[in-house]
Amino acid sequence: MEELVGLREGSSGSPVSLRELWGPCPRVRRGIRGGLEWLKQKLFRVGEDWYFLMTLGVLMALISYTMNFAIGRVVRAHKWLYREIGDSHLLRYLSWTVYPVALVSFSSGFSQSITPFSGGSGIPELKTILSGVVLEDYLDIKNFGAKVAGLTCTLAAGSTVFLGKVGPFVHLSVMIAAYLGRVHTKAIGESENKSKQNEMLVAAAAVGVATVFAAPFSGILFSIEVMSSHFSVWDYWRGFFAATCGAFMFRLLAVFNSEQETITSLYKTSFRVDVPFDLPEIFFFVALGAICGILSCAYLFCQRTFLGFVKTNRVISKLLATSKPLYSALAALVLASITYPPGVGHFLASRLSMKEHLDSLFDNHSWALMTRNSSPPWPEELDPQNLWFEWYHPRFTIFGTLAFFLVMKFWMLILATTIPIPAGYFMPIFIFGAAIGRLIGEALALAFPEGIVAGGVTNPIMPGGYALAGAAAFSGAVTHTISTALLAFELTGQIVHALPVLMAVLAANAIAQSCQPSFYDGTIIVKKLPYLPWIRGRKISSQRVIVGHFMNCTMTTLAKDTPLEEVARVVTSTDLAKYFLVESTESQILVGTVGRAHLVQALQAEPPSWAPGHRHLRDLLAGGCPMEPVTLQLSPETSLHQAHNLFELLNLQSLPVTSLGRAVGSVSWVELKKAISDLTNPPAPK
Amino acid sequence: MEELVGLREGSSGSPVSLRELWGPCPRVRRGIRGGLEWLKQKLFRVGEDWYFLMTLGVLMALISYTMNFAIGRVVRAHKWLYREIGDSHLLRYLSWTVYPVALVSFSSGFSQSITPFSGGSGIPELKTILSGVVLEDYLDIKNFGAKVAGLTCTLAAGSTVFLGKVGPFVHLSVMIAAYLGRVHTKAIGESENKSKQNEMLVAAAAVGVATVFAAPFSGILFSIEVMSSHFSVWDYWRGFFAATCGAFMFRLLAVFNSEQETITSLYKTSFRVDVPFDLPEIFFFVALGAICGILSCAYLFCQRTFLGFVKTNRVISKLLATSKPLYSALAALVLASITYPPGVGHFLASRLSMKEHLDSLFDNHSWALMTRNSSPPWPEELDPQNLWFEWYHPRFTIFGTLAFFLVMKFWMLILATTIPIPAGYFMPIFIFGAAIGRLIGEALALAFPEGIVAGGVTNPIMPGGYALAGAAAFSGAVTHTISTALLAFELTGQIVHALPVLMAVLAANAIAQSCQPSFYDGTIIVKKLPYLPWIRGRKISSQRVIVGHFMNCTMTTLAKDTPLEEVARVVTSTDLAKYFLVESTESQILVGTVGRAHLVQALQAEPPSWAPGHRHLRDLLAGGCPMEPVTLQLSPETSLHQAHNLFELLNLQSLPVTSLGRAVGSVSWVELKKAISDLTNPPAPK
Repeated sequence: MEELVGLREGSSGSPVSLRELWGPCPRVRRGIRGGLEWLKQKLFRVGEDWYFLMTLGVLMALISYTMNFAIGRVVRAHKWLYREIGDSHLLRYLSWTVYPVALVSFSSGFSQSITPFSGGSGIPELKTILSGVVLEDYLDIKNFGAKVAGLTCTLAAGSTVFLGKVGPFVHLSVMIAAYLGRVHTKAIGESENKSKQNEMLVAAAAVGVATVFAAPFSGILFSIEVMSSHFSVWDYWRGFFAATCGAFMFRLLAVFNSEQETITSLYKTSFRVDVPFDLPEIFFFVALGAICGILSCAYLFCQRTFLGFVKTNRVISKLLATSKPLYSALAALVLASITYPPGVGHFLASRLSMKEHLDSLFDNHSWALMTRNSSPPWPEELDPQNLWFEWYHPRFTIFGTLAFFLVMKFWMLILATTIPIPAGYFMPIFIFGAAIGRLIGEALALAFPEGIVAGGVTNPIMPGGYALAGAAAFSGAVTHTISTALLAFELTGQIVHALPVLMAVLAANAIAQSCQPSFYDGTIIVKKLPYLPWIRGRKISSQRVIVGHFMNCTMTTLAKDTPLEEVARVVTSTDLAKYFLVESTESQILVGTVGRAHLVQALQAEPPSWAPGHRHLRDLLAGGCPMEPVTLQLSPETSLHQAHNLFELLNLQSLPVTSLGRAVGSVSWVELKKAISDLTNPPAPK
Repeated sequence: MEELVGLREGSSGSPVSLRELWGPCPRVRRGIRGGLEWLKQKLFRVGEDWYFLMTLGVLMALISYTMNFAIGRVVRAHKWLYREIGDSHLLRYLSWTVYPVALVSFSSGFSQSITPFSGGSGIPELKTILSGVVLEDYLDIKNFGAKVAGLTCTLAAGSTVFLGKVGPFVHLSVMIAAYLGRVHTKAIGESENKSKQNEMLVAAAAVGVATVFAAPFSGILFSIEVMSSHFSVWDYWRGFFAATCGAFMFRLLAVFNSEQETITSLYKTSFRVDVPFDLPEIFFFVALGAICGILSCAYLFCQRTFLGFVKTNRVISKLLATSKPLYSALAALVLASITYPPGVGHFLASRLSMKEHLDSLFDNHSWALMTRNSSPPWPEELDPQNLWFEWYHPRFTIFGTLAFFLVMKFWMLILATTIPIPAGYFMPIFIFGAAIGRLIGEALALAFPEGIVAGGVTNPIMPGGYALAGAAAFSGAVTHTISTALLAFELTGQIVHALPVLMAVLAANAIAQSCQPSFYDGTIIVKKLPYLPWIRGRKISSQRVIVGHFMNCTMTTLAKDTPLEEVARVVTSTDLAKYFLVESTESQILVGTVGRAHLVQALQAEPPSWAPGHRHLRDLLAGGCPMEPVTLQLSPETSLHQAHNLFELLNLQSLPVTSLGRAVGSVSWVELKKAISDLTNPPAPK
């Protein structure tokens, strides 16, 4: 109507108003406005969740890219220093070692002084949180700064300490998601919702992986395989959307910064496409997978044992308790001294960065064939065109170097995992696997120099393909995942080795999963975090175990007619978070649960003058002590499998068991764990 | 000991026994025997499941390959007939049309005469079965022959009827898994276990997809996205193993049959690798995804409407009820007449097979640029080197042909889906999407003939990349899945377009999922199969809906003290499969459930002379009528989300609701469905 008025005034000869100039077609304008309104409604109806996920992805990509950028600068400065410092061995040695030692001890000191939760990868703790355990403050945003600063220093120490960034990024991403969620809940004044929160955290974990590797598919699959045992397709879609946003933004920034021509994969390979491998090679790929599986078992066992040793050894544990930076500095000094390029580092290709390690190992030429007749000199400076020269030594050949690299890195990696700094352990494992594959691939290329003849055409063997399979198989075996195969394809931008890599990963997983707990589960065990084991084997006999066999029958219940002094005695003598409430001591009909904190509060508010035996729990409840309803209850006839499924899917901690309405017991992780371990190791008959 | 005796005899001069010749080193032999024994135990401890999954994969691969082989022969015979029959138009027309008409009507008649369950793709029914509904006989092995024979005929009719094989293969695979499972259970004499069976069926579905496309990763993800709403990582691993076995075997057979040099992907492409697309093209990819999303909505709507029309129209439904082969023949005649190459088929590239359609659409050259100045002649015979000539018409150019193809195939596909034959509908949709992408890609290539300049280098636009994105986006939108993106990479063996294809698929899914039910859900709705809808939107307010709001309070319970004449009345007047049993009419304490069949049996066994009112249900139970325990019960306070999760995860049909042990109601799919629909369309206040 206003526009119409303006129009009429203009046409009646009065001075042309500004409004008229801007509003000549009221109908069209109203139409457009209506359209915009409709679009706005439509866009808001989509749900804030999707905007939330997009924000998360973009934010994490920005952080990841900025961190990479900063690390690149620091590393370049180190290289410059090392090059320019002169020929004195002492000075060169100092410039090589002091840098990482300083960075690592700063990383350790800084992050640990702010919060003890910033160390390690964070994935084991997240796994515990996502299964329903509340770890106080672990997702607090105040850890964020410590983790970012610490991780940057760790990564800036480069291939000397040989650590990655996947785990911490998953932790960072989940932290941001939890923080944004809290802010959002506060802003709109709604109460927190746990299941919705969990959905967001699962998606955030995928974003973490995706923004490190720019690999959305394997990002979401890897995070699902590592984090959960059940998941919904809905969560998978959300995570996928967020991961795609993150990966796109991450690669977009590289294009904007003129590092890349267009959006490509991180570790681009150029394997031969027409006949990438011959059929008989499949056998070698599977054998490689089996070798990776066996080595991963050895690695997992040694790693867990050493971690346990560090925790129990009196000297080291005292050192770790009092001065973490000192321990970190010592460990970094050992690692840096060994990798000093003119020394032992010569045989470890230690001048290569982590990225260059992978790029060189995925090289599609056979080094063994190229160095059969001619031997390239060890260049004074790193040759960016021929990174593989670093792997060659005239006397030991590339086989010696690769084998020495594997042997040394095996224990160096284990040592590095004990340093209390924010760091990821996936990337080093991936590179280690690539080196295993490369070694076997080169051996095959030398054993069959003509290539394997198939179909009348001879094709030289590509050791790069074996490196790819080895990386996927070893990292898959260590983490008990198979999506590392997909990760290998997404990272390299080529999928020509699809089936051989898959089969290698399956073979490696078959061995590793039947012998050792995964890297993350192992850490959970060593750190004594709560966890719910899987039901392995799934023998048919396990289907006959029912809740009645293993439930905890001696649970503490409070009846409505319990006298208050009895309630006070129970509350002070036990430390459960909540108690099951039954109708009366006699009937034991389950009514609900009541929180310990509320009980204590209500008891304290009671006038101190009550006569013993005259007031009951019922009076407290009537007086405002809140009671929560029981939403789910088991029967003694529920099977172990069903109960296990319920606990896993709904992230439960404990459930009451009722029979004919009477509370007859309860089941928690403790009972489930015991029942599952009894399945595999039946208890001796009494 | 025996060996030792033999050895002693030999050394004491007696004639050398045969045993001694073969058994010179008893210790080594015993060692080897022990080792073999250990290996045998170890291999058996792995669990038969893995052998079962491997067998399933290999079996399905054999079937898939044999079927492809047979179809190839039949198609070649048709081509030969069409070529050799002479120049008479009538004869050529007859030879072109009679073949598919005969095949399709035979397929329809044969398979429908054996079992009515063999028609269609089978995925909607499987989805229902996997969510816990029992569809009698749907997985019976006797459907197997009908489905295989029918499907072979359908596919042998080639690109005329334009149907695929994914859906039926999923059905076949699940059928075989169910059959093998039953045989195995019988052989070892164990009782059937439903949850274990379900695990196998999920893995089998993945095998079905994987053996058609030789794509294990997308096989398992696609089958999960289509079939379930929740799944366990354990199922994912099993399915992955089986799918890899199947895909490997499938491709291995191709190598053994000298079709391939080595194991490669099915529809190999050769896109430019260094700069496959420029950054600004991402925008066009997303726009293409949005267009595919909108078109998929139109397709889904028309398809569902037409399917409903066919079901309700009196003439057609009568025809379908009485003579299915006639309807099939008529529909095939229409399709074949339109695709007759010298007629309208000229503009539909109808001489290409399904595989050649895809191969030509994924071509990495731009047809528009190649035909700008010169126009190739329409070849008399199909030119295997230049399949794309089929898409070119001098007057209408490739744009006219592609657009005409899209318009015609749109309704031809919908018509084809109504024919009652075993057939898959995924592949035609995939090709349709590729054609959409190709059309837009060619238009872009013509609009920017110099390519998009980025970073100083000009790169011509590759319409093949758009075809790939279109195929993934359209098929993803129609089936509501995003793993089609991965399928596109696994099928073509190249992953260079990773991010653009992903973003196109996400855009298409965003539109399709918010507007239309998926192809399979739509079929479930039209066929009136039972299904449990999703909780969409997940607004925070939906978290406050609790079971007490929507449970069925008027459920029929039987008390232990109900007189038998009352029990008989209830059993005859209702038709529930089982009744909830309560302790007494007064207390209503839930005790368990009792099956209707058992009740009827027990009632019939009662002596007819009982005096009314003297015998109660309690007597029946004491007399051997079995009662089943309730393993899980809800409370009125359980939230809708929790209940929905439970039903989905545990494949439940109904659950009792108890309050203080008293049965106060029940929740089944009916109530859940109503509650979910009330969330989105709140009921009018009374």
